Amino acid sequence: MTKMVKPLILITNDDGISSPGIRMLINQMNSLGDVVVVAPNSPQSGMGHAITINDSLRCDIISIDSGSQKEYSCSGTPVDCIKLGVHEILDRKPDLIVSGVNHGSNASVNVIYSGTMAAAIEGSMQGVPSIGFSLLDYSWEADFTEAEEYVLEIASKVLKNGLPNGICLNVNIPKMSNKKCNGIKICRQTIGKWIEDFDKRIDPNGKSYYWMTGAFKDQDGSDQSDIWALNEKYVSIVPVKFDLTAHESLIDITKILGL
Amino acid sequence: MTKMVKPLILITNDDGISSPGIRMLINQMNSLGDVVVVAPNSPQSGMGHAITINDSLRCDIISIDSGSQKEYSCSGTPVDCIKLGVHEILDRKPDLIVSGVNHGSNASVNVIYSGTMAAAIEGSMQGVPSIGFSLLDYSWEADFTEAEEYVLEIASKVLKNGLPNGICLNVNIPKMSNKKCNGIKICRQTIGKWIEDFDKRIDPNGKSYYWMTGAFKDQDGSDQSDIWALNEKYVSIVPVKFDLTAHESLIDITKILGL
Repeated sequence: MTKMVKPLILITNDDGISSPGIRMLINQMNSLGDVVVVAPNSPQSGMGHAITINDSLRCDIISIDSGSQKEYSCSGTPVDCIKLGVHEILDRKPDLIVSGVNHGSNASVNVIYSGTMAAAIEGSMQGVPSIGFSLLDYSWEADFTEAEEYVLEIASKVLKNGLPNGICLNVNIPKMSNKKCNGIKICRQTIGKWIEDFDKRIDPNGKSYYWMTGAFKDQDGSDQSDIWALNEKYVSIVPVKFDLTAHESLIDITKILGL
Repeated sequence: MTKMVKPLILITNDDGISSPGIRMLINQMNSLGDVVVVAPNSPQSGMGHAITINDSLRCDIISIDSGSQKEYSCSGTPVDCIKLGVHEILDRKPDLIVSGVNHGSNASVNVIYSGTMAAAIEGSMQGVPSIGFSLLDYSWEADFTEAEEYVLEIASKVLKNGLPNGICLNVNIPKMSNKKCNGIKICRQTIGKWIEDFDKRIDPNGKSYYWMTGAFKDQDGSDQSDIWALNEKYVSIVPVKFDLTAHESLIDITKILGL
Protein backbone atom coordinates (compact mmCIF):
# COMPACT_ATOMS: atom_id res chain seq x y z
CA MET A 1 0.00 0.00 0.00
CA THR A 2 1.30 3.46 -0.89
CA LYS A 3 0.68 6.34 1.41
CA MET A 4 -1.31 9.16 -0.18
CA VAL A 5 0.66 12.41 -0.04
CA LYS A 6 -1.68 15.35 0.28
CA PRO A 7 -0.94 18.52 -1.71
CA LEU A 8 1.15 21.07 0.17
CA ILE A 9 -0.36 24.57 0.18
CA LEU A 10 1.47 27.73 1.31
CA ILE A 11 -0.70 30.68 2.36
CA THR A 12 0.08 34.35 2.96
CA ASN A 13 -1.66 37.72 2.72
CA ASP A 14 -0.99 41.43 3.22
CA ASP A 15 -3.64 42.35 5.79
CA GLY A 16 -1.84 40.38 8.50
CA ILE A 17 -2.10 36.84 9.85
CA SER A 18 -5.12 37.50 12.09
CA SER A 19 -7.33 39.12 9.46
CA PRO A 20 -10.70 37.49 8.67
CA GLY A 21 -9.81 37.14 4.97
CA ILE A 22 -6.84 34.84 5.55
CA ARG A 23 -8.75 32.85 8.18
CA MET A 24 -11.41 32.03 5.58
CA LEU A 25 -8.72 31.10 3.04
CA ILE A 26 -6.97 28.79 5.55
CA ASN A 27 -10.26 27.15 6.41
CA GLN A 28 -11.04 26.42 2.75
CA MET A 29 -7.53 25.22 1.89
CA ASN A 30 -7.50 22.79 4.85
CA SER A 31 -10.05 20.75 2.85
CA LEU A 32 -7.65 20.51 -0.12
CA GLY A 33 -4.30 19.63 1.45
CA ASP A 34 -1.66 20.19 4.11
CA VAL A 35 -1.59 23.91 4.82
CA VAL A 36 1.33 26.00 6.03
CA VAL A 37 0.73 29.70 6.69
CA VAL A 38 3.61 32.19 6.65
CA ALA A 39 2.00 35.61 6.93
CA PRO A 40 2.88 39.12 8.13
CA ASN A 41 2.45 39.87 11.83
CA SER A 42 1.12 43.34 10.95
CA PRO A 43 -0.79 44.97 8.04
CA GLN A 44 1.33 45.27 4.87
CA SER A 45 -1.16 46.77 2.43
CA GLY A 46 0.35 48.74 -0.42
CA MET A 47 3.76 47.14 0.08
CA GLY A 48 3.93 45.99 -3.55
CA HIS A 49 6.89 43.72 -4.23
CA ALA A 50 8.96 45.12 -1.33
CA ILE A 51 11.51 42.82 0.30
CA THR A 52 13.54 43.25 3.48
CA ILE A 53 17.16 43.84 2.50
CA ASN A 54 18.68 45.92 5.27
CA ASP A 55 17.07 44.30 8.29
CA SER A 56 16.71 40.80 9.72
CA LEU A 57 13.41 38.89 9.82
CA ARG A 58 11.52 37.22 12.64
CA CYS A 59 9.38 34.20 11.86
CA ASP A 60 7.73 32.51 14.83
CA ILE A 61 5.38 29.54 15.04
CA ILE A 62 1.98 30.61 16.28
CA SER A 63 -1.45 29.09 16.87
CA ILE A 64 -4.53 31.19 16.15
CA ASP A 65 -7.44 28.83 15.70
CA SER A 66 -8.26 25.12 15.86
CA GLY A 67 -7.63 24.23 12.19
CA SER A 68 -5.12 21.63 10.96
CA GLN A 69 -2.77 24.23 9.46
CA LYS A 70 0.72 25.08 10.73
CA GLU A 71 1.23 28.84 11.11
CA TYR A 72 4.19 31.21 11.22
CA SER A 73 3.93 34.90 12.00
CA CYS A 74 6.57 36.90 10.15
CA SER A 75 7.95 40.42 10.65
CA GLY A 76 8.49 40.94 6.91
CA THR A 77 6.51 41.80 3.80
CA PRO A 78 4.23 39.39 1.91
CA VAL A 79 7.06 38.66 -0.56
CA ASP A 80 9.46 37.96 2.34
CA CYS A 81 6.86 35.48 3.65
CA ILE A 82 6.85 33.56 0.34
CA LYS A 83 10.65 33.48 0.16
CA LEU A 84 10.91 32.33 3.80
CA GLY A 85 8.15 29.77 3.32
CA VAL A 86 9.58 28.23 0.15
CA HIS A 87 13.29 28.32 1.03
CA GLU A 88 13.35 27.93 4.83
CA ILE A 89 10.09 26.76 6.44
CA LEU A 90 8.83 24.10 4.02
CA ASP A 91 10.77 20.90 3.48
CA ARG A 92 9.50 20.47 -0.07
CA LYS A 93 8.27 22.74 -2.87
CA PRO A 94 4.60 23.58 -2.33
CA ASP A 95 2.01 22.43 -4.88
CA LEU A 96 0.05 25.67 -4.59
CA ILE A 97 0.53 29.16 -3.17
CA VAL A 98 -2.55 31.22 -2.30
CA SER A 99 -2.57 34.79 -1.02
CA GLY A 100 -5.42 36.75 0.56
CA VAL A 101 -8.29 36.87 0.77
CA ASN A 102 -7.56 40.58 0.57
CA HIS A 103 -9.94 43.04 2.18
CA GLY A 104 -10.50 45.26 -0.88
CA SER A 105 -10.08 45.27 -4.65
CA ASN A 106 -6.86 44.43 -6.45
CA ALA A 107 -8.35 44.97 -9.90
CA SER A 108 -6.77 47.15 -12.61
CA VAL A 109 -3.47 48.84 -11.63
CA ASN A 110 -4.03 47.98 -7.96
CA VAL A 111 -2.26 44.73 -8.83
CA ILE A 112 1.03 46.68 -8.88
CA TYR A 113 0.64 48.24 -5.41
CA SER A 114 -0.80 45.14 -3.78
CA GLY A 115 1.19 43.04 -1.31
CA THR A 116 -1.36 40.25 -1.77
CA MET A 117 -0.70 40.08 -5.50
CA ALA A 118 3.07 40.58 -5.09
CA ALA A 119 3.08 37.39 -2.98
CA ALA A 120 1.26 35.50 -5.75
CA ILE A 121 3.64 36.94 -8.37
CA GLU A 122 6.61 35.89 -6.21
CA GLY A 123 5.07 32.41 -6.02
CA SER A 124 5.03 32.19 -9.81
CA MET A 125 8.65 33.42 -9.86
CA GLN A 126 9.47 30.47 -7.58
CA GLY A 127 7.83 28.14 -10.11
CA VAL A 128 4.74 27.35 -8.02
CA PRO A 129 1.14 27.73 -9.31
CA SER A 130 -0.08 30.78 -7.40
CA ILE A 131 -3.31 32.70 -6.90
CA GLY A 132 -4.14 36.01 -5.21
CA PHE A 133 -7.74 36.39 -3.99
CA SER A 134 -9.43 39.69 -3.16
CA LEU A 135 -12.96 40.62 -2.07
CA LEU A 136 -14.33 44.04 -3.02
CA ASP A 137 -14.95 45.05 0.59
CA TYR A 138 -12.30 46.98 2.50
CA SER A 139 -13.90 46.58 5.92
CA TRP A 140 -12.38 44.29 8.56
CA GLU A 141 -15.90 42.86 9.12
CA ALA A 142 -16.39 42.01 5.42
CA ASP A 143 -18.58 38.93 4.82
CA PHE A 144 -16.42 36.32 3.07
CA THR A 145 -18.95 33.46 3.13
CA GLU A 146 -20.30 33.98 -0.38
CA ALA A 147 -16.74 34.08 -1.72
CA GLU A 148 -15.90 30.64 -0.29
CA GLU A 149 -17.27 28.57 -3.17
CA TYR A 150 -15.26 30.52 -5.75
CA VAL A 151 -12.05 30.34 -3.73
CA LEU A 152 -12.46 26.57 -3.37
CA GLU A 153 -13.41 26.00 -7.02
CA ILE A 154 -10.56 28.07 -8.50
CA ALA A 155 -7.91 26.69 -6.11
CA SER A 156 -9.05 23.09 -6.78
CA LYS A 157 -8.80 23.52 -10.53
CA VAL A 158 -5.37 25.16 -10.38
CA LEU A 159 -4.16 22.41 -8.02
CA LYS A 160 -5.42 19.79 -10.50
CA ASN A 161 -4.42 21.42 -13.81
CA GLY A 162 -1.52 23.73 -12.92
CA LEU A 163 -0.83 27.10 -14.55
CA PRO A 164 1.39 28.11 -17.49
CA ASN A 165 5.00 28.91 -16.53
CA GLY A 166 5.49 32.43 -15.22
CA ILE A 167 1.76 33.13 -14.80
CA CYS A 168 -0.28 33.60 -11.63
CA LEU A 169 -3.95 34.54 -11.22
CA ASN A 170 -5.43 37.78 -9.89
CA VAL A 171 -8.92 36.82 -8.68
CA ASN A 172 -11.29 39.57 -7.56
CA ILE A 173 -14.69 38.75 -6.10
CA PRO A 174 -17.52 41.29 -6.10
CA LYS A 175 -19.33 42.23 -2.89
CA MET A 176 -22.55 40.33 -3.27
CA SER A 177 -24.83 40.98 -0.27
CA ASN A 178 -27.27 38.07 -0.78
CA LYS A 179 -27.54 38.29 -4.58
CA LYS A 180 -25.79 35.46 -6.41
CA CYS A 181 -22.72 36.28 -8.41
CA ASN A 182 -23.12 35.89 -12.21
CA GLY A 183 -20.16 33.52 -12.61
CA ILE A 184 -16.50 33.86 -13.58
CA LYS A 185 -14.92 35.95 -16.37
CA ILE A 186 -11.34 35.71 -17.61
CA CYS A 187 -10.28 39.35 -18.10
CA ARG A 188 -7.41 41.68 -18.74
CA GLN A 189 -6.16 44.38 -16.36
CA THR A 190 -8.37 47.47 -16.78
CA ILE A 191 -6.60 50.51 -18.24
CA GLY A 192 -6.89 53.20 -15.59
CA LYS A 193 -4.98 55.11 -12.95
CA TRP A 194 -5.10 56.66 -9.51
CA ILE A 195 -5.13 60.43 -9.40
CA GLU A 196 -3.63 61.38 -6.07
CA ASP A 197 -4.65 64.23 -3.88
CA PHE A 198 -2.42 65.26 -0.98
CA ASP A 199 -4.06 66.61 2.14
CA LYS A 200 -1.45 69.02 3.55
CA ARG A 201 -1.59 69.63 7.30
CA ILE A 202 0.48 71.45 9.91
CA ASP A 203 1.67 69.55 12.99
CA PRO A 204 1.69 71.08 16.51
CA ASN A 205 5.33 72.13 15.89
CA GLY A 206 4.39 74.16 12.83
CA LYS A 207 5.83 71.71 10.30
CA SER A 208 3.89 70.44 7.31
CA TYR A 209 3.00 66.84 6.51
CA TYR A 210 0.79 65.11 3.97
CA TRP A 211 -1.85 62.40 3.84
CA MET A 212 -2.11 60.73 0.45
CA THR A 213 -5.63 60.24 -0.85
CA GLY A 214 -6.79 59.61 -4.37
CA ALA A 215 -9.52 58.64 -6.78
CA PHE A 216 -9.37 55.86 -9.35
CA LYS A 217 -10.11 56.85 -12.95
CA ASP A 218 -11.27 54.06 -15.28
CA GLN A 219 -9.90 54.84 -18.77
CA ASP A 220 -11.03 51.56 -20.27
CA GLY A 221 -14.69 50.53 -20.19
CA SER A 222 -14.20 47.47 -22.42
CA ASP A 223 -16.19 44.34 -21.57
CA GLN A 224 -12.86 42.46 -21.51
CA SER A 225 -11.60 44.42 -18.49
CA ASP A 226 -11.66 43.25 -14.88
CA ILE A 227 -13.46 46.31 -13.51
CA TRP A 228 -16.23 45.90 -16.09
CA ALA A 229 -16.68 42.26 -15.04
CA LEU A 230 -16.76 43.18 -11.34
CA ASN A 231 -19.31 45.94 -11.96
CA GLU A 232 -21.46 43.32 -13.71
CA LYS A 233 -21.11 41.09 -10.61
CA TYR A 234 -18.78 38.53 -12.14
CA VAL A 235 -15.73 37.13 -10.39
CA SER A 236 -12.82 38.48 -12.48
CA ILE A 237 -9.65 36.47 -13.14
CA VAL A 238 -6.65 38.15 -14.78
CA PRO A 239 -3.61 36.02 -15.68
CA VAL A 240 -0.61 38.03 -14.46
CA LYS A 241 3.01 37.72 -15.56
CA PHE A 242 6.30 38.95 -14.11
CA ASP A 243 8.06 39.43 -17.44
CA LEU A 244 7.59 43.20 -17.63
CA THR A 245 9.27 43.50 -21.05
CA ALA A 246 7.14 45.42 -23.55
CA HIS A 247 8.07 42.96 -26.33
CA GLU A 248 5.79 44.81 -28.76
CA SER A 249 7.82 48.01 -28.30
CA LEU A 250 11.35 46.71 -28.89
CA ILE A 251 11.48 48.07 -32.45
CA ASP A 252 9.86 51.41 -31.53
CA ILE A 253 12.45 51.98 -28.81
CA THR A 254 15.27 51.24 -31.24
CA LYS A 255 13.90 54.01 -33.50
CA ILE A 256 13.29 56.48 -30.67
CA LEU A 257 16.90 56.12 -29.55
CA GLY A 258 18.21 56.27 -33.14
CA LEU A 259 20.06 52.96 -32.85
CA MET B 1 9.44 87.71 -28.42
CA THR B 2 8.31 84.45 -26.80
CA LYS B 3 10.02 83.18 -23.72
CA MET B 4 11.61 79.74 -24.17
CA VAL B 5 10.17 77.29 -21.63
CA LYS B 6 12.77 74.75 -20.63
CA PRO B 7 11.74 71.11 -20.19
CA LEU B 8 10.69 70.22 -16.64
CA ILE B 9 12.47 67.13 -15.28
CA LEU B 10 11.48 65.29 -12.08
CA ILE B 11 14.17 63.15 -10.44
CA THR B 12 14.03 60.51 -7.72
CA ASN B 13 15.92 57.35 -6.67
CA ASP B 14 15.86 54.60 -4.06
CA ASP B 15 19.32 54.94 -2.52
CA GLY B 16 18.38 58.25 -0.87
CA ILE B 17 18.72 61.89 -1.83
CA SER B 18 22.37 62.23 -0.80
CA SER B 19 23.70 59.21 -2.73
CA PRO B 20 26.41 59.80 -5.38
CA GLY B 21 24.26 58.19 -8.10
CA ILE B 22 21.44 60.74 -7.86
CA ARG B 23 23.94 63.63 -7.55
CA MET B 24 25.43 62.62 -10.93
CA LEU B 25 21.95 62.32 -12.45
CA ILE B 26 20.94 65.78 -11.15
CA ASN B 27 24.15 67.28 -12.51
CA GLN B 28 23.53 65.84 -15.99
CA MET B 29 19.82 66.75 -16.08
CA ASN B 30 20.57 70.38 -15.10
CA SER B 31 22.02 70.73 -18.63
CA LEU B 32 18.74 69.59 -20.20
CA GLY B 33 16.07 71.50 -18.31
CA ASP B 34 14.58 72.76 -15.07
CA VAL B 35 15.16 70.04 -12.49
CA VAL B 36 13.06 69.26 -9.43
CA VAL B 37 14.23 66.47 -7.14
CA VAL B 38 11.80 64.66 -4.83
CA ALA B 39 13.75 61.79 -3.33
CA PRO B 40 13.72 59.59 -0.21
CA ASN B 41 15.47 60.91 2.90
CA SER B 42 16.77 57.38 3.61
CA PRO B 43 17.70 54.26 1.61
CA GLN B 44 14.68 52.51 0.06
CA SER B 45 16.32 49.69 -1.88
CA GLY B 46 14.12 46.67 -2.49
CA MET B 47 10.95 48.64 -1.79
CA GLY B 48 9.42 47.66 -5.13
CA HIS B 49 6.17 49.50 -5.85
CA ALA B 50 5.40 50.12 -2.16
CA ILE B 51 3.34 53.19 -1.24
CA THR B 52 2.60 54.76 2.13
CA ILE B 53 -1.05 54.12 2.94
CA ASN B 54 -1.29 54.04 6.73
CA ASP B 55 1.08 56.84 7.61
CA SER B 56 1.56 60.50 6.71
CA LEU B 57 4.44 61.81 4.61
CA ARG B 58 7.03 64.51 5.21
CA CYS B 59 8.43 66.39 2.26
CA ASP B 60 10.82 69.23 3.06
CA ILE B 61 12.77 71.58 0.82
CA ILE B 62 16.48 70.99 1.17
CA SER B 63 19.74 72.21 -0.37
CA ILE B 64 22.58 69.74 -0.85
CA ASP B 65 24.88 71.18 -3.49
CA SER B 66 25.29 74.27 -5.64
CA GLY B 67 23.36 73.10 -8.74
CA SER B 68 20.33 74.88 -10.23
CA GLN B 69 17.88 72.14 -9.16
CA LYS B 70 15.16 72.48 -6.53
CA GLU B 71 15.21 69.62 -4.03
CA TYR B 72 12.74 68.02 -1.64
CA SER B 73 13.64 65.31 0.85
CA CYS B 74 10.74 62.91 1.43
CA SER B 75 10.00 60.39 4.17
CA GLY B 76 8.27 58.00 1.77
CA THR B 77 9.11 55.40 -0.84
CA PRO B 78 10.33 56.16 -4.39
CA VAL B 79 6.76 55.73 -5.70
CA ASP B 80 5.45 58.13 -3.02
CA CYS B 81 8.07 60.63 -4.25
CA ILE B 82 6.75 60.45 -7.81
CA LYS B 83 3.13 60.84 -6.69
CA LEU B 84 4.04 63.77 -4.42
CA GLY B 85 6.16 65.35 -7.13
CA VAL B 86 3.58 65.10 -9.89
CA HIS B 87 0.44 65.90 -7.87
CA GLU B 88 1.65 68.27 -5.15
CA ILE B 89 5.11 69.78 -5.67
CA LEU B 90 5.18 70.55 -9.40
CA ASP B 91 2.86 73.17 -10.88
CA ARG B 92 2.76 71.45 -14.27
CA LYS B 93 3.17 67.94 -15.62
CA PRO B 94 6.88 67.12 -16.02
CA ASP B 95 8.28 66.45 -19.50
CA LEU B 96 10.54 63.68 -18.21
CA ILE B 97 10.96 61.58 -15.07
CA VAL B 98 14.34 60.00 -14.36
CA SER B 99 15.18 57.71 -11.45
CA GLY B 100 18.59 56.62 -10.18
CA VAL B 101 21.37 56.34 -10.95
CA ASN B 102 21.00 53.18 -8.86
CA HIS B 103 24.03 51.75 -7.11
CA GLY B 104 23.73 48.19 -8.46
CA SER B 105 22.01 46.20 -11.20
CA ASN B 106 18.31 46.27 -11.93
CA ALA B 107 18.56 43.81 -14.81
CA SER B 108 16.39 40.69 -15.17
CA VAL B 109 13.82 40.15 -12.38
CA ASN B 110 15.53 42.78 -10.21
CA VAL B 111 13.23 45.22 -12.01
CA ILE B 112 10.35 43.91 -9.87
CA TYR B 113 12.07 44.43 -6.48
CA SER B 114 13.66 47.76 -7.41
CA GLY B 115 12.45 51.04 -5.95
CA THR B 116 14.37 52.87 -8.69
CA MET B 117 12.44 51.07 -11.42
CA ALA B 118 9.12 51.28 -9.52
CA ALA B 119 9.51 55.08 -9.61
CA ALA B 120 10.04 54.96 -13.39
CA ILE B 121 7.08 52.60 -13.81
CA GLU B 122 4.95 54.96 -11.69
CA GLY B 123 6.09 57.81 -13.94
CA SER B 124 4.79 55.95 -16.98
CA MET B 125 1.52 55.28 -15.12
CA GLN B 126 1.24 59.07 -14.67
CA GLY B 127 1.64 59.48 -18.43
CA VAL B 128 5.16 60.94 -18.32
CA PRO B 129 8.12 59.54 -20.35
CA SER B 130 10.23 57.88 -17.66
CA ILE B 131 13.62 56.20 -17.36
CA GLY B 132 15.32 54.25 -14.56
CA PHE B 133 19.14 54.22 -14.66
CA SER B 134 21.36 51.73 -12.83
CA LEU B 135 25.11 51.17 -12.72
CA LEU B 136 26.43 47.65 -12.07
CA ASP B 137 28.36 48.67 -8.98
CA TYR B 138 26.77 48.36 -5.54
CA SER B 139 29.39 50.38 -3.69
CA TRP B 140 28.65 53.87 -2.37
CA GLU B 141 31.96 55.01 -3.92
CA ALA B 142 31.04 53.68 -7.40
CA ASP B 143 32.57 55.69 -10.27
CA PHE B 144 29.69 57.18 -12.27
CA THR B 145 31.75 59.33 -14.65
CA GLU B 146 31.86 56.86 -17.55
CA ALA B 147 28.07 56.42 -17.28
CA GLU B 148 27.44 60.16 -17.74
CA GLU B 149 27.49 60.20 -21.55
CA TYR B 150 24.94 57.37 -21.78
CA VAL B 151 22.62 58.97 -19.22
CA LEU B 152 22.74 62.25 -21.12
CA GLU B 153 22.29 60.67 -24.56
CA ILE B 154 19.35 58.45 -23.58
CA ALA B 155 17.58 61.16 -21.58
CA SER B 156 18.03 63.71 -24.43
CA LYS B 157 16.53 61.35 -27.00
CA VAL B 158 13.56 60.44 -24.81
CA LEU B 159 12.97 64.12 -24.07
CA LYS B 160 13.00 64.84 -27.82
CA ASN B 161 11.09 61.80 -29.14
CA GLY B 162 8.95 60.66 -26.19
CA LEU B 163 8.08 57.05 -25.41
CA PRO B 164 5.10 54.86 -26.35
CA ASN B 165 2.14 55.07 -23.93
CA GLY B 166 2.50 52.89 -20.87
CA ILE B 167 6.21 52.14 -21.46
CA CYS B 168 9.26 53.23 -19.47
CA LEU B 169 12.91 52.28 -19.91
CA ASN B 170 15.09 50.13 -17.66
CA VAL B 171 18.66 51.21 -18.45
CA ASN B 172 21.55 49.26 -16.93
CA ILE B 173 25.13 50.37 -17.42
CA PRO B 174 28.07 47.96 -17.04
CA LYS B 175 30.94 48.69 -14.68
CA MET B 176 33.63 49.76 -17.12
CA SER B 177 36.85 50.60 -15.25
CA ASN B 178 38.63 52.50 -18.04
CA LYS B 179 37.60 50.25 -20.95
CA LYS B 180 35.03 51.81 -23.26
CA CYS B 181 31.56 50.34 -23.30
CA ASN B 182 30.59 48.58 -26.57
CA GLY B 183 27.44 50.66 -27.13
CA ILE B 184 23.73 50.25 -26.43
CA LYS B 185 21.53 47.16 -26.91
CA ILE B 186 17.72 47.07 -26.74
CA CYS B 187 16.94 43.89 -24.80
CA ARG B 188 14.29 41.89 -23.06
CA GLN B 189 14.23 41.05 -19.35
CA THR B 190 16.47 38.01 -18.77
CA ILE B 191 14.63 34.87 -17.64
CA GLY B 192 16.11 34.01 -14.25
CA LYS B 193 15.44 34.04 -10.54
CA TRP B 194 16.90 34.58 -7.10
CA ILE B 195 17.35 31.46 -5.00
CA GLU B 196 17.22 32.65 -1.41
CA ASP B 197 19.23 31.32 1.44
CA PHE B 198 18.27 32.26 5.00
CA ASP B 199 21.02 32.65 7.57
CA LYS B 200 19.32 31.66 10.84
CA ARG B 201 20.81 33.15 14.01
CA ILE B 202 19.95 33.25 17.70
CA ASP B 203 19.71 36.61 19.44
CA PRO B 204 21.07 37.24 22.99
CA ASN B 205 17.58 36.44 24.33
CA GLY B 206 17.61 32.98 22.77
CA LYS B 207 15.12 33.81 20.00
CA SER B 208 15.77 33.04 16.35
CA TYR B 209 15.95 35.54 13.48
CA TYR B 210 16.96 35.41 9.84
CA TRP B 211 19.10 37.32 7.37
CA MET B 212 18.01 36.87 3.77
CA THR B 213 20.79 36.21 1.28
CA GLY B 214 20.59 34.68 -2.16
CA ALA B 215 22.18 33.90 -5.47
CA PHE B 216 20.85 34.87 -8.89
CA LYS B 217 20.37 32.04 -11.37
CA ASP B 218 20.37 32.99 -15.06
CA GLN B 219 17.98 30.61 -16.85
CA ASP B 220 18.17 32.43 -20.16
CA GLY B 221 21.50 32.92 -21.94
CA SER B 222 19.96 34.35 -25.12
CA ASP B 223 21.77 37.21 -26.83
CA GLN B 224 18.52 39.18 -26.65
CA SER B 225 18.58 39.29 -22.84
CA ASP B 226 19.76 42.20 -20.71
CA ILE B 227 22.23 40.19 -18.63
CA TRP B 228 23.87 38.85 -21.79
CA ALA B 229 24.29 42.41 -23.09
CA LEU B 230 25.74 43.63 -19.79
CA ASN B 231 28.19 40.70 -19.65
CA GLU B 232 29.31 41.75 -23.15
CA LYS B 233 29.83 45.31 -21.85
CA TYR B 234 26.85 46.89 -23.61
CA VAL B 235 24.46 49.32 -21.96
CA SER B 236 21.16 47.37 -21.83
CA ILE B 237 17.77 49.03 -22.33
CA VAL B 238 14.58 47.06 -21.65
CA PRO B 239 11.22 48.69 -22.44
CA VAL B 240 9.03 47.97 -19.37
CA LYS B 241 5.26 48.02 -19.14
CA PHE B 242 2.83 48.11 -16.23
CA ASP B 243 0.08 46.11 -17.92
CA LEU B 244 0.85 42.81 -16.19
CA THR B 245 -1.86 40.90 -18.09
CA ALA B 246 -0.53 37.73 -19.72
CA HIS B 247 -2.62 38.36 -22.85
CA GLU B 248 -1.14 35.27 -24.51
CA SER B 249 -2.54 33.05 -21.73
CA LEU B 250 -6.17 34.20 -21.66
CA ILE B 251 -7.39 31.16 -23.62
CA ASP B 252 -5.20 28.69 -21.68
CA ILE B 253 -6.62 29.95 -18.39
CA THR B 254 -10.17 29.57 -19.69
CA LYS B 255 -9.39 25.89 -20.40
CA ILE B 256 -7.57 25.29 -17.09
CA LEU B 257 -10.59 26.58 -15.19
CA GLY B 258 -13.02 24.65 -17.42
CA LEU B 259 -15.01 27.76 -18.31
